[in-house]
Amino acid sequence: MATQLRVDSIRCSTEAGSGHPTSSLSAADLMAVLLAGHLRYDWDRPDLATNDHLIFSKGHASPLLYSMFRAVGVIDDVELVTTYRQFGARLEGHPTPILPWVDVATGSLGQGLPDAVGVGLAGRFLDRLDYHAWVLCGDGEMAEGSMWEAFDKASFYSLGNVTAIVDVNRLGQRGPTELEWDLESYARRVEAFGARALIIDGHDLAAIDEALRDARSDPDRPSVILARTIKAKGVPELEDKNGWHGKALPTEMAERAIAALGGVSDVHVATAHPRPDSPAITPMPNTAINWPSFALGDMVATRSAFGAAIAALATRPDVVVLDGEVGNSTHADEFQKIAPDRYFEMFIAEQQLVAAATGLAVRGYRPFASTFAVFFSRAFDFIRMAGISGVNIALVGSHAGVEIGQDGPSQMALEDIAALRAVHGSVVLYPADATATVALVGEMANTGGVVYLRTTRGAYPVIYPVGENFPVGGCKVHRASPDDQVALVGAGVTLHECLGAANELAAIGVLARVIDLYSLKPLDRDTLVATCHVTGSRLVIVEDHYPEGGVGAAVLEALADAGVPALRVAHLAVSSLPGSGTSVELLDAAGISARHIVAAALRLGEQ
Amino acid sequence: MATQLRVDSIRCSTEAGSGHPTSSLSAADLMAVLLAGHLRYDWDRPDLATNDHLIFSKGHASPLLYSMFRAVGVIDDVELVTTYRQFGARLEGHPTPILPWVDVATGSLGQGLPDAVGVGLAGRFLDRLDYHAWVLCGDGEMAEGSMWEAFDKASFYSLGNVTAIVDVNRLGQRGPTELEWDLESYARRVEAFGARALIIDGHDLAAIDEALRDARSDPDRPSVILARTIKAKGVPELEDKNGWHGKALPTEMAERAIAALGGVSDVHVATAHPRPDSPAITPMPNTAINWPSFALGDMVATRSAFGAAIAALATRPDVVVLDGEVGNSTHADEFQKIAPDRYFEMFIAEQQLVAAATGLAVRGYRPFASTFAVFFSRAFDFIRMAGISGVNIALVGSHAGVEIGQDGPSQMALEDIAALRAVHGSVVLYPADATATVALVGEMANTGGVVYLRTTRGAYPVIYPVGENFPVGGCKVHRASPDDQVALVGAGVTLHECLGAANELAAIGVLARVIDLYSLKPLDRDTLVATCHVTGSRLVIVEDHYPEGGVGAAVLEALADAGVPALRVAHLAVSSLPGSGTSVELLDAAGISARHIVAAALRLGEQ
Repeated sequence: MATQLRVDSIRCSTEAGSGHPTSSLSAADLMAVLLAGHLRYDWDRPDLATNDHLIFSKGHASPLLYSMFRAVGVIDDVELVTTYRQFGARLEGHPTPILPWVDVATGSLGQGLPDAVGVGLAGRFLDRLDYHAWVLCGDGEMAEGSMWEAFDKASFYSLGNVTAIVDVNRLGQRGPTELEWDLESYARRVEAFGARALIIDGHDLAAIDEALRDARSDPDRPSVILARTIKAKGVPELEDKNGWHGKALPTEMAERAIAALGGVSDVHVATAHPRPDSPAITPMPNTAINWPSFALGDMVATRSAFGAAIAALATRPDVVVLDGEVGNSTHADEFQKIAPDRYFEMFIAEQQLVAAATGLAVRGYRPFASTFAVFFSRAFDFIRMAGISGVNIALVGSHAGVEIGQDGPSQMALEDIAALRAVHGSVVLYPADATATVALVGEMANTGGVVYLRTTRGAYPVIYPVGENFPVGGCKVHRASPDDQVALVGAGVTLHECLGAANELAAIGVLARVIDLYSLKPLDRDTLVATCHVTGSRLVIVEDHYPEGGVGAAVLEALADAGVPALRVAHLAVSSLPGSGTSVELLDAAGISARHIVAAALRLGEQ
Repeated sequence: MATQLRVDSIRCSTEAGSGHPTSSLSAADLMAVLLAGHLRYDWDRPDLATNDHLIFSKGHASPLLYSMFRAVGVIDDVELVTTYRQFGARLEGHPTPILPWVDVATGSLGQGLPDAVGVGLAGRFLDRLDYHAWVLCGDGEMAEGSMWEAFDKASFYSLGNVTAIVDVNRLGQRGPTELEWDLESYARRVEAFGARALIIDGHDLAAIDEALRDARSDPDRPSVILARTIKAKGVPELEDKNGWHGKALPTEMAERAIAALGGVSDVHVATAHPRPDSPAITPMPNTAINWPSFALGDMVATRSAFGAAIAALATRPDVVVLDGEVGNSTHADEFQKIAPDRYFEMFIAEQQLVAAATGLAVRGYRPFASTFAVFFSRAFDFIRMAGISGVNIALVGSHAGVEIGQDGPSQMALEDIAALRAVHGSVVLYPADATATVALVGEMANTGGVVYLRTTRGAYPVIYPVGENFPVGGCKVHRASPDDQVALVGAGVTLHECLGAANELAAIGVLARVIDLYSLKPLDRDTLVATCHVTGSRLVIVEDHYPEGGVGAAVLEALADAGVPALRVAHLAVSSLPGSGTSVELLDAAGISARHIVAAALRLGEQ
């Protein structure tokens, strides 16, 4: 079996002319024994709730993974050998969930294990099923801090259902790893982090078998199998040789190697089925939710409204909340008070926060991960990969923009909209009041992909009546008339500044409509286009964000090909580095307060 | 002294009405002893090359830091008490280098120690001076993976000149930390990572004194002082009490506490001066550089050109190169061949990669940190904070966009331009050929702030002659005529597609100019505006990036208020999730190849 996995890994990558055969060969024995003796998986029913999970954190070993898929019979030899890494194929260079047996996209190292922690949390605390998450890791990725966030959380939450299998093949892309074959050092580290370390020879089939059995045996401690392996094992001329990372074997060398390995074979493995058998993961029932409501004019921070909304959403059993040690600021802790069993404290580890959400989403849950908006930047690569994985996760970031006041720029999200908009398949929402926030939290629980909600620290008046709808992709227009001379476009806190400015403009006879862009992606293009035709494309766009990539860019991207009149846009954004101060001082200093909006509108009126 | 630091921490935060006094009080004894007995710093000459470095990784303890500044006499009592956290003040909520004694902005946890690793690398390997980097860390931030990247690298590089002082006060923002006062667990972890662990009572002045002396004594191993402390120590009614994180004491409580502590005092500390004395850090000499040159038409990847350019730049002694274990792909390793002593392998730890660059920049070096473009997303929060710190660091990201081909979406930077443009003070460059790359690498070494260069995997023809200038903020216009009907705007790989499209269009009688936007931030607005007036704002903008926040947004933001004719823009970008394939297949499938550009231009011509 291991030999076949080696042969197939060589065949598909040589045929493709690229890929990582040597990184596959080092782990072939590990995976052969896992597949034949330990993984419990019904390959015909990948959605089975009791299936184990197999995650290749070292996603570049995709030749090995796909060779395993051939060995269990879910892909055939033709697909493996002729489509790997080809245009339009599902056997991509790094695995993605385009394949039904792949949970998450990997290829950005140090993410598979953190994702598995989310799977493990679901298994231990929510599903209460005995499936196991097996994660093949590289030794190179042990340098990623996110791996240590994962070991820490796996041990903190006693995730005996998570096993990391570290393929310690000593060689990274450009040379030796930091610790090379110093398995004792790895063992000390993972044990210090609370996991069980099992050191083995990764090419000793009996030792692998015993370690895998052992790994599953402790229900309360995650295990880490530290397997000393040889890169390119099985191809003597390349074994343990630097310079062969990420290179396919030339055809002649491949033929020689395959022949020496005994040639192409067609061994099929019958993987053990999970026990007990169980139905597929089913969507959770959608329960009636008693949403909170707020009275017009009340002063309510949207972060508080989020807290009230997420607490209401606790009646939906699929909703899970994750906190980055700021739950009392984001108000995520309102959920904890109602449903402590579905609330996970991830402490100050934002990468693991997002990865756990991803893993929980793999298990069919609807995770809401929450921290200060600015600290999602710490997990940007994880958010990006969640977008590629196509998982449904909600991210709620509070304390956005200069509005936060005295804490200063390190705590101010001023680039989050740019970053989150650029994530594949993302949705970006930014409500201005409590009513909108509650409605959008409801939308988030039913919207696919990475859905980001930006909330505000300070309290602002409720402007929308109970029951108002806020569909994703919509906007709200205030004070519209057919004679409007200018439109003031805001979102979140700047919407209030726009409304104030419109009042001032009205007092001096200037008709300004106000657009609340609570949905920044997708954007209500039609309404913006129609507005431009009314106002002669006179728009004041105001955002509590740096000028690049945010609300202004979202609007301008939407209008670029819309055939609107020549733009006369004033774009007010935070263009210099803010410091400390009150919200009012900082909004004004950034040039995004009502008086600046009035002045900008008047300047546009002269054009 | 410790008492005064406590009193002052309370005074300034109570006066401000916000801040983190309780987190300051726990560390007051640690910092008092450090200041009085161990820190070597000439406060009148913060630019002195031999000064120690003091970094508050727990930046929220700014009341303590500023109280230390008062104690050494560099700020006065009035500034401390009346300006802390006020609008326009330099005593911001979290420290930033607006203060001459602050090296880096902190406040995003888990960054100060990684930054200090960069300082330590400079001290040990470049400056070869015996200054020490003292880093005050919180226990909460020990959950950040970046801390473990830092411990790992500090030990790998034998940085005995770095000491982490961990203020283990047991309480985070919303409750107990994961490990609370389990100092033995912390010790096992840091020792497993190769550092020396020194467990002390953080309120025992003699023990602190001994530990600090001990920490400095081992030249080859970083030390971690694990200090068991009590949050709010010195204010009995708040000591070790949850619910007081980030809250100023109410006035009356503050008065009571200050009185109990003995009232306001005016003790001045004479900090030891560094020895040996030395001159200020001076700018490195700018040496003549023998830049590589490329012949027109040669096929050269811009990543290869970067390698050649950075190798040439090695003659400048202030240039340092950092690799994220892909130096043979980014071609950063060309520098290693010339100047191995100024080349640091950071392995697969991108957060530490960027933080080390930040620390080296603090020491006056010009670091170039390089990895795959997509993996800078892993360090986005570090890049953001580098922007706030105002350090000069160069980031070079290779393998951008779908152009990379078979590796698939996990390896494709498709959101990097959006993210990097949104960093405060950043510069974003994207050369199309080898000549431009070399010129821009030269610019980067003399440009302030976070400067990002995006390079391409594949080889494309050299289109610019040797000696062509590429100023930051410029662009290049090809095939311009006063009768141009449309402009094709590209950057990097899409520039070649635009040139190909312009040829095709010319063959059918359509006059198209091509704009090479090699400088995406800042952008050459004037040229774009002038072009719009020629082409009636008919632009085809083409980018190997998702549609949000990238090249299109950069152009549109620049044109929004420029008074150009009504836009007729076709924006071609990567709008669905790519898979594997060849560059040619993927560029075409994404709709950003020459034939799509031609079609878009013709459609615009009909408008």
